[in-house]
Amino acid sequence: MPQGQPSVVPDDGLTTRQRRNRPLVVVHTGTGKGKSTAAFGLALRAWNQGWPIGVFQFVKSAKWRVGEERALRVLGDSGEGGSVAWHKMGEGWSWVQRSIATSEDAAREGWEQVKRDLAAETYRLYVLDEFAYPMHWGWVDTDEVVSVLRDRPGTQHVVITGRNAPAALLDAADLVTEMGKVKHPMDAGQKGQRGIEW
Amino acid sequence: MPQGQPSVVPDDGLTTRQRRNRPLVVVHTGTGKGKSTAAFGLALRAWNQGWPIGVFQFVKSAKWRVGEERALRVLGDSGEGGSVAWHKMGEGWSWVQRSIATSEDAAREGWEQVKRDLAAETYRLYVLDEFAYPMHWGWVDTDEVVSVLRDRPGTQHVVITGRNAPAALLDAADLVTEMGKVKHPMDAGQKGQRGIEW
Repeated sequence: MPQGQPSVVPDDGLTTRQRRNRPLVVVHTGTGKGKSTAAFGLALRAWNQGWPIGVFQFVKSAKWRVGEERALRVLGDSGEGGSVAWHKMGEGWSWVQRSIATSEDAAREGWEQVKRDLAAETYRLYVLDEFAYPMHWGWVDTDEVVSVLRDRPGTQHVVITGRNAPAALLDAADLVTEMGKVKHPMDAGQKGQRGIEW
Repeated sequence: MPQGQPSVVPDDGLTTRQRRNRPLVVVHTGTGKGKSTAAFGLALRAWNQGWPIGVFQFVKSAKWRVGEERALRVLGDSGEGGSVAWHKMGEGWSWVQRSIATSEDAAREGWEQVKRDLAAETYRLYVLDEFAYPMHWGWVDTDEVVSVLRDRPGTQHVVITGRNAPAALLDAADLVTEMGKVKHPMDAGQKGQRGIEW
């Protein structure tokens, strides 16, 4: 739904305009499909608004999200909407010159860069793909993430995806969707296929 | 997850390759956000595979999905991936020359065109955005939809979004995700905002 009537009007001293443009923390979690695809769908709207978009893929394999990456790079290079910067943990993060020993270290390096970019207001939409995992595993401190997000300057929207998003993150988020698995072809013995899974 | 191990191997006489490339009916339903955004995220993967994509928007307002439409049109025109055809009920469907009296008639006209395109194998991915509603309201017969989808020729994937998807459709679908609302800013009095809701 593009626009909507809020069910309550809060007594927070803000104008409707201020409230409307409040920066959001969005979380897509749950065991079903669509967590990341919906985040990249949101990126299409941000691109259409001309916003700079930063994608941080907190996954091991550099092959993941190849379709989304190519599409968003073509959009970012088209000159018609916002810019797109795509950062991959699976390739060792472009800003890290030395080799990174473990996935845990790699996830921490990714988060450190996100913190620097939030402080510098580099992007207006951040897609932190699969970032729920390093928090769930304790590699990145959830309380620190919540604190950094709460205190971030300007109007920066942050979308975080992944199963097992920690409760403290859900508490701090503005919008949380749980993608529930009702039925999946792999349950019926089907393997993933191109164009659908990647 | 781009690839995965199926939990069971069915005794259906198909090779893994045949099973892998089986055309899918995908449904995104539930009261949460992300149903349509995840469908358009899937379209990015289809575009990357070079597939022709047909989007049918079963919504009244022609203003909905403006960001997704512009992004997919730029991608379709880039010559780098698949083509994109975007059809809007809110503008009266381009192939219907006379005026359409009601939303019910408009939804039926949309479904008639989808049937023709499925028979002609016009696209490889169909995004039937908000198509669950006309079925739920009885404007389009769910049993007919299930029958047409079951008998469609070739390798045509179909994604249907919307709340209240009928049970018979879920039974017939290969992949169903329920987007559940955990928390939404409109509950806290916030209105929708550009770049996020549209």
